[in-house]
Amino acid sequence: MLRTKTIDDFLNVLASDAPTPGGGSVAALNGALGCALLTMVCDLTLGKEKYKEVWPDMEPIKAELENLREELTDSIDRDAAAYDTVTSAFKLPKTNDEEKKARREAIQTAMKTAAETPKSTARYIHQALKMAADVAEKGNPNVASDAGVAATCLLAGMQAALMNIAINLGSIKDEAYVHQMKIEMDFLKKEAGKLSNDVLVFVYKSIGMED
Amino acid sequence: MLRTKTIDDFLNVLASDAPTPGGGSVAALNGALGCALLTMVCDLTLGKEKYKEVWPDMEPIKAELENLREELTDSIDRDAAAYDTVTSAFKLPKTNDEEKKARREAIQTAMKTAAETPKSTARYIHQALKMAADVAEKGNPNVASDAGVAATCLLAGMQAALMNIAINLGSIKDEAYVHQMKIEMDFLKKEAGKLSNDVLVFVYKSIGMED
Repeated sequence: MLRTKTIDDFLNVLASDAPTPGGGSVAALNGALGCALLTMVCDLTLGKEKYKEVWPDMEPIKAELENLREELTDSIDRDAAAYDTVTSAFKLPKTNDEEKKARREAIQTAMKTAAETPKSTARYIHQALKMAADVAEKGNPNVASDAGVAATCLLAGMQAALMNIAINLGSIKDEAYVHQMKIEMDFLKKEAGKLSNDVLVFVYKSIGMED
Repeated sequence: MLRTKTIDDFLNVLASDAPTPGGGSVAALNGALGCALLTMVCDLTLGKEKYKEVWPDMEPIKAELENLREELTDSIDRDAAAYDTVTSAFKLPKTNDEEKKARREAIQTAMKTAAETPKSTARYIHQALKMAADVAEKGNPNVASDAGVAATCLLAGMQAALMNIAINLGSIKDEAYVHQMKIEMDFLKKEAGKLSNDVLVFVYKSIGMED
């Protein structure tokens, strides 16, 4: 499993010519990093009497961020597994028409799975981004930059997930499916841009950095 | 060491209320992820006879990316160590004027180290970004999305590093130092925006994704 590899080993296998892990796993990892940093901000707010007023807001947010982090960490491996089914489908025999047809169908099914996995990643990241501004604005201001870094990780994870959907859509022949997916991608992209910007504007101001 | 932790353990300690690791280590990790993905694109280009024409360009780029990845991976731990010296300086005794003066000076020195570490991270990321468009444009087009994901990681790492410089600058009283640092931050921010955009415009076109 990728999530139980050391950072060094993960980076080595990522840099190698092995087909997985690739950008889809990195998308999920960035989502998990963003959730972990937001959870840290919650922890350093829930731990201080000074911020007692916002504890009732922070507690359910922290619980949801922990669930999302678990899903996203798991998606590092799910994405690699989905891509491996594409590679396997391409290796199916094609010596006669029947085999060719079965192979084509297997490739189409695998490609859809390989597009659905980063779509799930993108949806989890969207959920996390919806809580990010609240965490930044209500959280301990001493760790404002960590809330900002969380937003950059979540946005990078979203962009990465969308690129991984797009490259797979290029091979999918079901036009209605592709059309529907593009509508959802467009929505997620706009949402991520807006939500991450809300966090960054607040954080930049808070740490005295020009936008 | 953080780099020898599993991804699961790193995420757990990141999410905890432990003072380190924080956003500075995540900045370095995103830089390392970007370098690893670009190296993967080089590997999958150098391995294929079809792309023989660009091998002389790819070989030195791959070697430099591997050096940068090593520096950036090491910076995950360097950043945590620098922040730990800030925490230690704040814990120094302050029972008399002499101790107070020594403590103030120790805090100022530690704060500069804590600003220099993400500055090094930002410079390594800048070096990697300067090669990213070449890798995307000359590399194996089947892994174009991975070059794009690399660009998003490098940009996120740069933004994260700059936020970590900024939050430390707020406590540094040496005005000339702060002024010089702000000039360099501005340069790095503009460069990162331009260089990552060059990669993304190419990749989005290549994978049929709207900008």
